[in-house]
Amino acid sequence: MRSSTLFARINRHTRMAAPRVNGHARPPTRQHPEPPPTPTRPPVPPSASLVEFGAYVRGGRVAAEDIPRALALVREHNTGLETPEAFVWVGLHEPRAPEVEWLAGLFGLHPLSVEDAIKAHQRPKVERYGDTLFIVLKTVNFLGDRAVDANGEIIETGEIMVFVGPDFVITVRHGDICPLAEVRARLEATPKLLERGPTGVLHAIADHVVDTYLTVADRMQAELEEVEAAVFADVSSRDINRIYQLKREMIEMKRAMTPLEAPLRSLPQRRMIPSEMRDYFRDVGDHLSRVCEQVESSNELCNSILQAALARSNALANEDMRKISSWVAILAVPTMIAGIYGMNFDHMPETRWTFGYPLVLGVMVVVCTLLYRAFRRNGWL
Amino acid sequence: MRSSTLFARINRHTRMAAPRVNGHARPPTRQHPEPPPTPTRPPVPPSASLVEFGAYVRGGRVAAEDIPRALALVREHNTGLETPEAFVWVGLHEPRAPEVEWLAGLFGLHPLSVEDAIKAHQRPKVERYGDTLFIVLKTVNFLGDRAVDANGEIIETGEIMVFVGPDFVITVRHGDICPLAEVRARLEATPKLLERGPTGVLHAIADHVVDTYLTVADRMQAELEEVEAAVFADVSSRDINRIYQLKREMIEMKRAMTPLEAPLRSLPQRRMIPSEMRDYFRDVGDHLSRVCEQVESSNELCNSILQAALARSNALANEDMRKISSWVAILAVPTMIAGIYGMNFDHMPETRWTFGYPLVLGVMVVVCTLLYRAFRRNGWL
Amino acid sequence: MRSSTLFARINRHTRMAAPRVNGHARPPTRQHPEPPPTPTRPPVPPSASLVEFGAYVRGGRVAAEDIPRALALVREHNTGLETPEAFVWVGLHEPRAPEVEWLAGLFGLHPLSVEDAIKAHQRPKVERYGDTLFIVLKTVNFLGDRAVDANGEIIETGEIMVFVGPDFVITVRHGDICPLAEVRARLEATPKLLERGPTGVLHAIADHVVDTYLTVADRMQAELEEVEAAVFADVSSRDINRIYQLKREMIEMKRAMTPLEAPLRSLPQRRMIPSEMRDYFRDVGDHLSRVCEQVESSNELCNSILQAALARSNALANEDMRKISSWVAILAVPTMIAGIYGMNFDHMPETRWTFGYPLVLGVMVVVCTLLYRAFRRNGWL
Amino acid sequence: MRSSTLFARINRHTRMAAPRVNGHARPPTRQHPEPPPTPTRPPVPPSASLVEFGAYVRGGRVAAEDIPRALALVREHNTGLETPEAFVWVGLHEPRAPEVEWLAGLFGLHPLSVEDAIKAHQRPKVERYGDTLFIVLKTVNFLGDRAVDANGEIIETGEIMVFVGPDFVITVRHGDICPLAEVRARLEATPKLLERGPTGVLHAIADHVVDTYLTVADRMQAELEEVEAAVFADVSSRDINRIYQLKREMIEMKRAMTPLEAPLRSLPQRRMIPSEMRDYFRDVGDHLSRVCEQVESSNELCNSILQAALARSNALANEDMRKISSWVAILAVPTMIAGIYGMNFDHMPETRWTFGYPLVLGVMVVVCTLLYRAFRRNGWL
Amino acid sequence: MRSSTLFARINRHTRMAAPRVNGHARPPTRQHPEPPPTPTRPPVPPSASLVEFGAYVRGGRVAAEDIPRALALVREHNTGLETPEAFVWVGLHEPRAPEVEWLAGLFGLHPLSVEDAIKAHQRPKVERYGDTLFIVLKTVNFLGDRAVDANGEIIETGEIMVFVGPDFVITVRHGDICPLAEVRARLEATPKLLERGPTGVLHAIADHVVDTYLTVADRMQAELEEVEAAVFADVSSRDINRIYQLKREMIEMKRAMTPLEAPLRSLPQRRMIPSEMRDYFRDVGDHLSRVCEQVESSNELCNSILQAALARSNALANEDMRKISSWVAILAVPTMIAGIYGMNFDHMPETRWTFGYPLVLGVMVVVCTLLYRAFRRNGWL
Ligand SMILES: [Mg+2]
Ligand SMILES: [Mg+2]
Ligand SMILES: [Mg+2]
Ligand SMILES: [Mg+2]
Ligand SMILES: [Mg+2]
Ligand SMILES: [Mg+2]
Ligand SMILES: [Mg+2]
Ligand SMILES: [Mg+2]
Ligand SMILES: [Mg+2]
Ligand SMILES: [Mg+2]
Ligand SMILES: [Mg+2]
Ligand SMILES: [Mg+2]
Ligand SMILES: [Mg+2]
Ligand SMILES: [Mg+2]
Ligand SMILES: [Mg+2]
Ligand SMILES: [Mg+2]
Ligand SMILES: [Mg+2]
Ligand SMILES: [Mg+2]
Ligand SMILES: [Mg+2]
Ligand SMILES: [Mg+2]
Ligand SMILES: [Mg+2]
Ligand SMILES: [Mg+2]
Ligand SMILES: [Mg+2]
Ligand SMILES: [Mg+2]
Ligand SMILES: [Mg+2]
Ligand SMILES: [Mg+2]
Ligand SMILES: [Mg+2]
Ligand SMILES: [Mg+2]
Ligand SMILES: [Mg+2]
Ligand SMILES: [Mg+2]
Ligand SMILES: [Mg+2]
Repeated sequence: MRSSTLFARINRHTRMAAPRVNGHARPPTRQHPEPPPTPTRPPVPPSASLVEFGAYVRGGRVAAEDIPRALALVREHNTGLETPEAFVWVGLHEPRAPEVEWLAGLFGLHPLSVEDAIKAHQRPKVERYGDTLFIVLKTVNFLGDRAVDANGEIIETGEIMVFVGPDFVITVRHGDICPLAEVRARLEATPKLLERGPTGVLHAIADHVVDTYLTVADRMQAELEEVEAAVFADVSSRDINRIYQLKREMIEMKRAMTPLEAPLRSLPQRRMIPSEMRDYFRDVGDHLSRVCEQVESSNELCNSILQAALARSNALANEDMRKISSWVAILAVPTMIAGIYGMNFDHMPETRWTFGYPLVLGVMVVVCTLLYRAFRRNGWL
Repeated sequence: MRSSTLFARINRHTRMAAPRVNGHARPPTRQHPEPPPTPTRPPVPPSASLVEFGAYVRGGRVAAEDIPRALALVREHNTGLETPEAFVWVGLHEPRAPEVEWLAGLFGLHPLSVEDAIKAHQRPKVERYGDTLFIVLKTVNFLGDRAVDANGEIIETGEIMVFVGPDFVITVRHGDICPLAEVRARLEATPKLLERGPTGVLHAIADHVVDTYLTVADRMQAELEEVEAAVFADVSSRDINRIYQLKREMIEMKRAMTPLEAPLRSLPQRRMIPSEMRDYFRDVGDHLSRVCEQVESSNELCNSILQAALARSNALANEDMRKISSWVAILAVPTMIAGIYGMNFDHMPETRWTFGYPLVLGVMVVVCTLLYRAFRRNGWL
Repeated sequence: MRSSTLFARINRHTRMAAPRVNGHARPPTRQHPEPPPTPTRPPVPPSASLVEFGAYVRGGRVAAEDIPRALALVREHNTGLETPEAFVWVGLHEPRAPEVEWLAGLFGLHPLSVEDAIKAHQRPKVERYGDTLFIVLKTVNFLGDRAVDANGEIIETGEIMVFVGPDFVITVRHGDICPLAEVRARLEATPKLLERGPTGVLHAIADHVVDTYLTVADRMQAELEEVEAAVFADVSSRDINRIYQLKREMIEMKRAMTPLEAPLRSLPQRRMIPSEMRDYFRDVGDHLSRVCEQVESSNELCNSILQAALARSNALANEDMRKISSWVAILAVPTMIAGIYGMNFDHMPETRWTFGYPLVLGVMVVVCTLLYRAFRRNGWL
Repeated sequence: MRSSTLFARINRHTRMAAPRVNGHARPPTRQHPEPPPTPTRPPVPPSASLVEFGAYVRGGRVAAEDIPRALALVREHNTGLETPEAFVWVGLHEPRAPEVEWLAGLFGLHPLSVEDAIKAHQRPKVERYGDTLFIVLKTVNFLGDRAVDANGEIIETGEIMVFVGPDFVITVRHGDICPLAEVRARLEATPKLLERGPTGVLHAIADHVVDTYLTVADRMQAELEEVEAAVFADVSSRDINRIYQLKREMIEMKRAMTPLEAPLRSLPQRRMIPSEMRDYFRDVGDHLSRVCEQVESSNELCNSILQAALARSNALANEDMRKISSWVAILAVPTMIAGIYGMNFDHMPETRWTFGYPLVLGVMVVVCTLLYRAFRRNGWL
Repeated sequence: MRSSTLFARINRHTRMAAPRVNGHARPPTRQHPEPPPTPTRPPVPPSASLVEFGAYVRGGRVAAEDIPRALALVREHNTGLETPEAFVWVGLHEPRAPEVEWLAGLFGLHPLSVEDAIKAHQRPKVERYGDTLFIVLKTVNFLGDRAVDANGEIIETGEIMVFVGPDFVITVRHGDICPLAEVRARLEATPKLLERGPTGVLHAIADHVVDTYLTVADRMQAELEEVEAAVFADVSSRDINRIYQLKREMIEMKRAMTPLEAPLRSLPQRRMIPSEMRDYFRDVGDHLSRVCEQVESSNELCNSILQAALARSNALANEDMRKISSWVAILAVPTMIAGIYGMNFDHMPETRWTFGYPLVLGVMVVVCTLLYRAFRRNGWL
């Protein structure tokens, strides 16, 4: 239980953990100052990190050989249209720097957002660079019971970065939590949703991520209830560990969700979001608020359980102490009497009596019985 | 007491609880991602879930065979009037999706509000979709003493959703708490109130719900006072449970009420609320603020009682420990003396004395008396 | 001490307490939903609840037979004047509904403010209905030492509602705290103040009420200091009760004062307050802020005393435990030695020695002395 | 330690303390309602309370017989000038009402500010009455170690009120803390500063007062560090007292400083502050923010030390309890064995053995040694 | 451990610590009131404190003999240009007053910013004086494990002040943390960054400082995890010390970072920041927010660990107490029985039995075994 692996770090995904040497987590030594932004390796198109790409025209997928051709096809289609009808959707998983830089060149992404997309460990946020929105969402995964005893992790977090331009969406995923395939499948199955274009894709992703928050928050609440029951049966030191672990994971979850609330609420006001999509983003924001409130409540309850566990543990200790002391008293009195009659005085008349011994035994029993009753009456036993 | 049913979950109505297998609550597994919004079953008019519907013209109820005819009748009456004088009021209880969708088609409700009305477990809120207001209110029910020992629930929450259009009100109720019949009866008995139209109905509902909050908050405060008295008589581990349960239910109540405060306060500013109704909504908002403040105070007091219970339990333990130690000391001294005179030395002059034994007994009594007095003087006994 | 009367409720005046059956407070059962606002009894002029009424012209009191005639007289005087010079002041104490409704008819009061004035238990607030201001102030009364042991109440709260119109002031008092007679007497003694009209009366009342807050807050602080001294002398479980009671009454006081701060600060900006009165209302607001800050500090200190009492109680317990354990050790060693020489072995050479007995006694004394010294040195004794 | 003088009140200067009868502080009984503002005694020019007055023209001091003549001289000089070049500076110490009223008549001060200047115990604030600014600053004095054992006071607070008009400054000091002479001396030594006029004097005072806050805050932090060291050496109940006292004085200090932050930050925006002085007031505000943050941190640390002291005290108690219990066990075993061989059975073969006694002694030693080792191994000893 | 050096002060750099006499830290006695701002010594050009200076034209370094000549050269180059292309960068380390005053004369710095640059111990801030920005950043250095046992310091803080004018940057460093050389080297290696002029230098510094915050925050989190593991293995009083130290250093770190958040976020809105630099400052602000949130979380976790450690320590104590009491009971029963058979009555039949002794021994063993089993069953052993 001593191993530092038990209480693994809060703001890091399990799978993105620091390398471990001899079973000890290496303290995270972020390479000290940021290196000069000069490209050390030339940009290359994404290969291993490329999950999928597609060109979509009026809600339908169109074949394209590679990303540049897909983009050309889309731009050709959109020429002359007031609102674009086609877009490209590129999906990446933990890309290396040159791959993102290659895309940045193709789609005109700002170097600062590129840096964030590569480095991960960002906070959730919504930023605008020119006519491109850059959104960072934290994904949350419930590890649940199977994990609770291994290393104390209950949830792990990952990240999804989304670049939303007028005619493209680029999604960059960090961590093993994989909801994007599901989102793409659902969207491709419902062309009406895809017709909304890049903003529709953004909405589908945000909606999905926030729905996951709700599921995870419900699961954590169930955990909390289990801990409540355990504490109110009897307070063991192991229960305290579980409360603390829950508390820690609640804070992790809060950090993943809360910073997103304000920018998501302001998203519908942005000029780049088509007016018919505004209610939909407000709806996502509303669900986010709901889960934030739930986690906040659970978090407050965690504190109260800790307090209650302490108070209960104290009260139980008092009850035990009174019980123990009562029995000590009941045992101490015959011991003292026996001690007295064990003294070696020559003249102790009682010791000569024929019935001295049973008399004393009787006295012992009577005294003990009286003590027992007295302790029961005042509630100590 | 160990059963996880004892501490049931906070944000779920007792009657809407997850299915239980073998007496264990199944962890809530919200079906993972939201299914595609394509209608799986065609819309149907509400039947089992329809509680009542009525057409009202200038405060009086008018007969109508079904909802579409009631609406037609109302719209015909309103034609040409600057402010509508007639409206339809439809009341549902836990409707299924196709029923709400059927109504949405008839009255032109936004799909997002429809989704909320079906799914329940929303947070209290006020939203505008076009010229329809969508309001979610949480109802609160006091379960009280009868429940306290069964599963620790003191209050349960339900929901009322209200769609307010220019010529209709649709109320959707979730959970078993049933105040709407009462509200409808009262309104039908006072035509002056009904003449205010859909906004008047909304006011009557909100007013009623907030009045219930006041009643429940008073009840919870009475519970709190009982717990106070129990803690200040003697701190038992059971008292701690009760404090914690109260705390948890306070948080549940806060979550049900607090998010409503801001939108309710801004409701009078909305263009859709007729100016003569504004003071009335402000009044409801004011009562809501009062009960929020009361629950906030009770909540803060819960924390203090927990703290005080801990400190008292500690202080009582010290007082007990001093008492116990004093008696241990009073018993230990004669035991030690008896031990000394129980030694088997050949030459112990005192054991030869004729009055050695009574003398030693006397010494024991004197020493114990002195000890007793000393302990009384320094307050340990 | 067990009786639930000991910890009476926070937001209720002692004199307005719920009826008690067999010494138990009945749980407060506010009559469930608000009854229809149709007048059940016809309005009547106030009689038993009427404390005083007066017509004032340019700061002097003018004779009038009843309220309607006083009002007529005043309105006649004011006719043609740009700023009214005369006003009526009606003072009520816990009026019944028909009485307030009668006044509402005469002076044109809004039904919502009438409802509040009848029902009491409002939160402090400032509301405008047309050209009438409706102000609710909580009065606070210090019960002090005499009460502390009876039922744990240190302060009780009452209410003053004030209707301020262009030519009238109506004051409604709830609870036994009676400062209005005093205010009226002072104002009648200083015509310059009365000349300021209804707003001047409002200022005098608010100023007086806030001054009382200062007095009460000082008294509570003195209580707090007494508790501090008691805790730092020795932590008894009774001290904890007092801290908690203080804490509870602090919260009651905060609730009575704090909600008034914001509306009182915005009062000077209202068009209805004459410009020469604005500095005076700001001054009251400033004094209110001062007492709010004081109570907030005392409240924070209450938490710290509770914490400190707990920590002290723990530290004292440790000190006691070390002391007790030391004496137990000092007694246990001779007991053990005596036990050894009480064994019945045939061959125990020491028991044959002539000086065996005094030798062993000496050894016991030496060992105990050494132990005693050792415990003194390491600070346990 | 029991005396209520030990924990003197927070918002009162030591030297302005309530009269004490028989060593007990009289509970502060502010004279109940504010008396009518009619002057009971006629205004008189300040005499005993007058510390100094001076007329300053272009940074140099000019002789004047009394305050009215000084003011006449100054006003004569300023006649026709766009920005005044001369001003009067009057300094008072705890003046009586008639004296301040006399000055109010001469300089045209508002009665509300006059009331505040007489009564003291104000909160820090900045108020404007016509073209006069009225500023209340709390002075803070470090009493330090010499006081810590006398009555638990670490700091005491006083007040400086400043009236700033276009051609006068009036400073009113309450409490014994005396920095104004120093400020005046420094200003008279640097005519460039005095040329800035009344606002320059205000700045010099505010700057000086805030610098004192920094000094005092540093001293309190040093105290905090001493307490930290004391707690982490060993937690005694006396340490808890010191933490609590520090906490209380931190709160006193916060109350003296924090309310000034907002008005001081808004001071530079006021029309009455010459533009070249604005950076200087911002600088004072900045230093005030710095010291507020420092005290806030120390205050938070106080809470943590209290928590840590409690946790340490608990952990130490456990460590002691384990140690004590180990020794009890080590002593209890030979006592039990001795008890067994002290039984008076006729047939106890061991007692007949020649080496029975040393054998049993040996067994005792071996068992005790084994126990001792076992306890060392599991860390209890 | 008692030495006051162990818990050194929070808002002071280790290397800037107050002089120590006999190993005791002298309480910090800031020279009481600020001395008159008259220059005591005439300004002199910086020598010992001058780290480096350079003139930069279009991103390249140009040779210059001394600072005035560098400035002349730069100003000559910029003459006639709309946006300056050249600037001077002067770097100082803990300069004396006359040196900064000399620079102030040359570059036209405001005396208030000069004072701050000399005195250090400022709070992080952004101020504008005319067309010069004055920025204070706190640097943070991780001392880590090597320090933890020496004096409890985990991090130390220093300061960087930056004056940013249209054609100059002056950096003043306090404390031994030395990142500026690194920043200068990196900038000189990438002319594109240097071409951005003084604002670019400011960005590079701020970016670097904030990156260091991230590194240090990660390190502190690793410490926190180690402490978690230590507490959850077994709660020792030493663990509590470590938690408290971490807490204290978290607060120190928060104070160093948090006040910068608001001004840094508003920096991009300032007219003096070229529009193409705005995204870059927003990016730094974003990273700052991320690290602030992380430290805030860790800080909250510190509180929870302290709470959990206390609760665990209590629960462990109960578990130990039950174990100890069980063994005491198991030992006390045979002792009592032995005492009874040690009594010296003439008529104790059992003592005459041949198998009395082994029988009693057997009884003892049986009773102890039964007790042992009972205690195991109820979980006390
Ligand atoms: Mg970035
Ligand atoms: Mg589980
Ligand atoms: Mg985790
Ligand atoms: Mg959704
Ligand atoms: Mg469960
Ligand atoms: Mg348990
Ligand atoms: Mg304890
Ligand atoms: Mg929704
Ligand atoms: Mg009950
Ligand atoms: Mg419930
Ligand atoms: Mg109502
Ligand atoms: Mg009750
Ligand atoms: Mg009880
Ligand atoms: Mg009302
Ligand atoms: Mg008293
Ligand atoms: Mg009360
Ligand atoms: Mg007043
Ligand atoms: Mg007192
Ligand atoms: Mg006491
Ligand atoms: Mg005043
Ligand atoms: Mg000291
Ligand atoms: Mg003080
Ligand atoms: Mg200064
Ligand atoms: Mg020190
Ligand atoms: Mg100590
Ligand atoms: Mg400064
Ligand atoms: Mg380490
Ligand atoms: Mg440090
Ligand atoms: Mg960076
Ligand atoms: Mg680690
Ligand atoms: Mg440990």
